Amino acid sequence: MTEPLDPILRYVDEQRARFVDELVTWCRIPSISSSEAHAADMRRSAEHLRERLSRLGATSTAVIDTRLHPAVYAEWIVDPKKPTLLVYGHHDVQPSEPLSEWRSPPFEPAVRDGRLWGRGVVDDKGQVYIHVNAVEAFVRTKGAPPINVKMIVEGEEEIGSVNLDGLLRSHADRLQADFVVVSDTAMFGRGIPSLCVGLRGIAYFDVTVHALSMDAHSGSFGGGIANPANALARMIASLHDESGRITVPGFYDRVRELTAAERAEIASLPFDEREWLASVGGHAAVGERGYSTLERIWTRPTLDVNGLDSGWQGEGSKTIIPARAKAKLSCRLVPDQDPTEIAALVEKHLVAIAPPGCRVEVRYLHGGRPYLAPTEHPVYEIAKRAFSRAFGARTVFIREGGSIPFVRTIADRTGKPCLLMGFGQPDENAHAPNEWLDLENYHLGIKSAVYLYDELSRA
Amino acid sequence: MTEPLDPILRYVDEQRARFVDELVTWCRIPSISSSEAHAADMRRSAEHLRERLSRLGATSTAVIDTRLHPAVYAEWIVDPKKPTLLVYGHHDVQPSEPLSEWRSPPFEPAVRDGRLWGRGVVDDKGQVYIHVNAVEAFVRTKGAPPINVKMIVEGEEEIGSVNLDGLLRSHADRLQADFVVVSDTAMFGRGIPSLCVGLRGIAYFDVTVHALSMDAHSGSFGGGIANPANALARMIASLHDESGRITVPGFYDRVRELTAAERAEIASLPFDEREWLASVGGHAAVGERGYSTLERIWTRPTLDVNGLDSGWQGEGSKTIIPARAKAKLSCRLVPDQDPTEIAALVEKHLVAIAPPGCRVEVRYLHGGRPYLAPTEHPVYEIAKRAFSRAFGARTVFIREGGSIPFVRTIADRTGKPCLLMGFGQPDENAHAPNEWLDLENYHLGIKSAVYLYDELSRA
Repeated sequence: MTEPLDPILRYVDEQRARFVDELVTWCRIPSISSSEAHAADMRRSAEHLRERLSRLGATSTAVIDTRLHPAVYAEWIVDPKKPTLLVYGHHDVQPSEPLSEWRSPPFEPAVRDGRLWGRGVVDDKGQVYIHVNAVEAFVRTKGAPPINVKMIVEGEEEIGSVNLDGLLRSHADRLQADFVVVSDTAMFGRGIPSLCVGLRGIAYFDVTVHALSMDAHSGSFGGGIANPANALARMIASLHDESGRITVPGFYDRVRELTAAERAEIASLPFDEREWLASVGGHAAVGERGYSTLERIWTRPTLDVNGLDSGWQGEGSKTIIPARAKAKLSCRLVPDQDPTEIAALVEKHLVAIAPPGCRVEVRYLHGGRPYLAPTEHPVYEIAKRAFSRAFGARTVFIREGGSIPFVRTIADRTGKPCLLMGFGQPDENAHAPNEWLDLENYHLGIKSAVYLYDELSRA
Repeated sequence: MTEPLDPILRYVDEQRARFVDELVTWCRIPSISSSEAHAADMRRSAEHLRERLSRLGATSTAVIDTRLHPAVYAEWIVDPKKPTLLVYGHHDVQPSEPLSEWRSPPFEPAVRDGRLWGRGVVDDKGQVYIHVNAVEAFVRTKGAPPINVKMIVEGEEEIGSVNLDGLLRSHADRLQADFVVVSDTAMFGRGIPSLCVGLRGIAYFDVTVHALSMDAHSGSFGGGIANPANALARMIASLHDESGRITVPGFYDRVRELTAAERAEIASLPFDEREWLASVGGHAAVGERGYSTLERIWTRPTLDVNGLDSGWQGEGSKTIIPARAKAKLSCRLVPDQDPTEIAALVEKHLVAIAPPGCRVEVRYLHGGRPYLAPTEHPVYEIAKRAFSRAFGARTVFIREGGSIPFVRTIADRTGKPCLLMGFGQPDENAHAPNEWLDLENYHLGIKSAVYLYDELSRA
C-alpha cells in the first residue's frame, strides 16, 4: 500500500534543503497584519504565495481582497468524484517587537541547531508550506495530487480573523470540501503526532460593585457602610465551593463529562506538570477536585478573575472606603456550554448575590463557543494513520484550553470535520521573540501531508 | 456662683463684632503649610498671632521655630498654686484649591448668613481665637485669667504635625500643665455641645498574593493553576464571619466592650443616618451585627479594603491569569487595641491562610493607637458644665471614627487629660472649598472658654 508513494517521499527527501530555502524567502516578507505600515507587505506576501501556487499547476489561483488584508486561494481539481480537502492556513504574522531580544533578525530567517529562526516560520508560513510542498511533491512526481485540494490562506488570523466569516460566506461554493485540515497548532511534545480535538470557549465579563457616589473616609464611615471592595471579594470567593466547583446555578447543566476512553487517552500523555508550571513560574497545580491537571485545563470550565481595580493602588496608604470596585471575570467554557446562556446565568447570579448596600453591574463583553471535533468520523482514524506513518509514533488526541476563534468559524461555516493537525512545538515562541521551526518536524510534516492526501484518496 | 462672670460675659457681648474683625484680619494671611511658596506667610501668621497675644498681657510669648513652620507660644502665669491649662491649636490651614468653587475668595473672609466664609475660619484660626478672646475678656475686665493659661499653636497640623512630638519634648518644662484643651473638632450637630472622648486608631497594610512569575494565558492555564486574584478575594472574604466580625485570631482580645452608660449616651444622640449615608451617596448602613451605626463607626474595629490591584484593568478584555494580586487593607482600631500587636496578628493570619500555590507578602505601612479619654477624671464634668452653660444645652460625649494623630501625641507627651472641645459644625467644609464658621458658635465658644477657665479656677 505504501509502494506507490516511494517516489513522492524520495522527492520530499531530495528537496529538503530547497523547501527550507523557499520558506526562508517567503518569511523575509514582514507580513504583519496588525500594522498599517505593513499593508504593502501583506499584499507582497499574498502575491508571492499565489505565484508559487500557480507554478505548481493549480487549476485556479486567486488573491482575494477583504476589507483589510488579502487572502490567497488555490485549487487542484483532479477529479470531481474524488474527495476534496480544504487546507486552511494564514500568511500574516505577529509583530516582532521587542527586536532587541531576537538573536537573529526576525525577517532574516537563519538556521541554527536544526531549527529555522524567524518570525512566521512556524506560525503559520512553515505550516502552510508543509502542504504546498506536499502538493508540489505529488505534482512533480505524479502530475497532480491524488485528491482535489483547495487552499485558503488568510491574512488576518493574528488580528482575530476579522473577515474570515464573510470570506467563507461569499466564497461558499468555491470552498466546498469533504474535509478541512488546519495546520496552525502545536504537537503535544517532540515526536508526538497530535490531533487537537477540543477547544474551550469563553464568556468574558466586566463586573462593577457600586456602593457610594464618592470615596468615603475610612475613619468616619468604616464599619458602618458597605465597602464595595470587601463586597466584591466576598462575591468572587462565593463563586467556587470547597471542591473548586463553580457555584453559579445551572453552570454545569450542559457540561459533557469525559468518557472513560477520553480520560484514558489524556492520562496516557507524557505531561510534565513541573515544566508546565515552571513555564509561568507557578508553584502548584491546583483546581477542581477529581480531575487531573490536563483534564482541568482542557475539559473543565473555569471562572477566573482576570483583573481587579478599586480604590487606592499607589505607593503608601490612602484611608478610604472606595466608591466602587471592579473585576474582569471570565469563564472558559467546554462542550456543550453556550456562552450566551452562561453569560445570562452568571449575570443573574452576580446581581442576586450583591451584598446589602451594593449594586452590581455586569457587562458581558464577548463570548466564544467551545469546540469538540466529531472524532467518530472515519477521517480522524485516517489522519491518525497518516500522521503516525510519517513520525513513526502513535498519534494522540489532545485538546487546547484556549479558544481558536477561526476553528469555530470554519467548522460552523463548512459543516465538515475540521482536522487540527499541527506541526509546531509547545515552546516554539510563536508570539514571542525568537520564534523557531523544528526542521525535522517541517520535513516529517510534509510527509504527513503526503500520507494524508494518499490515505484520503483511498478512503 | 456666676455673679462675678457678668462683666466678662458682657465684654464678650460688646466685643462680638470686633472679635470677628480680628479673626478676619488673621485669616487674610494664607498660612498654607503644605506649600513651600507660603513659608513667609506661615511666619507672618505666627508673628501676627504672637503680637496679639503679647498685647494681652501674656507673661511670655515666643515664636518657636521647628524644622519647617513656626509655632507660637504664650503663657499667662497668674499664680503657681492655681491650676494650669494648656490650650492647643494650629495656625496653618489647608490649601484652597479648587479656587473656582469658592463663592468668595478663600483669603478674603466674608460674612454671609450669620457665617464667616474663608479658609481657616474654623480650622483652626477661629477656634484658636475663641481662647484668645476669652483670655482677652478676662484680661480687660479682671486684669488676668483666673488660672494659669498656656497656649501652643503649631504651624504643621495640616501636614501631619510632623514636628509636634519634638516640640513637646524639647519644651516639656514650659508646656507642663494640669489639663489640656484642644479646640479643633466639630460639635455633633447644631446646638449640641460635644466633648470628643474617643478616637479610633489604625493599622494599614499592603498585601500581595504572588502566584506566578508572569501573567499566564487563561486558556492554557485557567483551571489548573492558582489564580492570585481569586485567592486574594477568598482570603479577604474569609476575614469577616457572617455576623460581620473579623476572624483574625486574637483580634478582639483587647477590645473594650461598651458600658451600658456609654451605649445609652450614644443612643441618645440625634443621629440622622439617612443624612450621613447621603453625604457619600451610600445606600445602606451595614456592619457588625449587634451594634448601632454610631457604635460601629466610633467604637468597633474594622478591616476594610482600601484598594485592589490585579491584572487587566483597562477597557475590554485580556485573557490572563494575573501573576499577582494586591490589596491595601486597613484596620480601624479601638481601645485598647495596639497597632503593632494587631499588625503582627493580621500578618500572621494572612500568611497562614494563603491558598495552595500562592505566597502572601504583607507590609505593615503605618499605625496609630486609638484614644479613649479618662472621662472619670473630674475635669470632664467641669468641661461639660462650662460648655452647657454657654450653649444652654446638655453636653454630650461623642467619639470620632478617624484618628487625630496630634491628640495621641499630646496625650502621650503630657500625660494629662486632653479635652477635645470643638466648636465646628459637621458640614463646615473644613478641608473643602467654602469653609465657614458659624458666628453664633464662635460667640458661644468664647463664652464656653470663659466658663471653662472660671470653673477650672474653682476646681
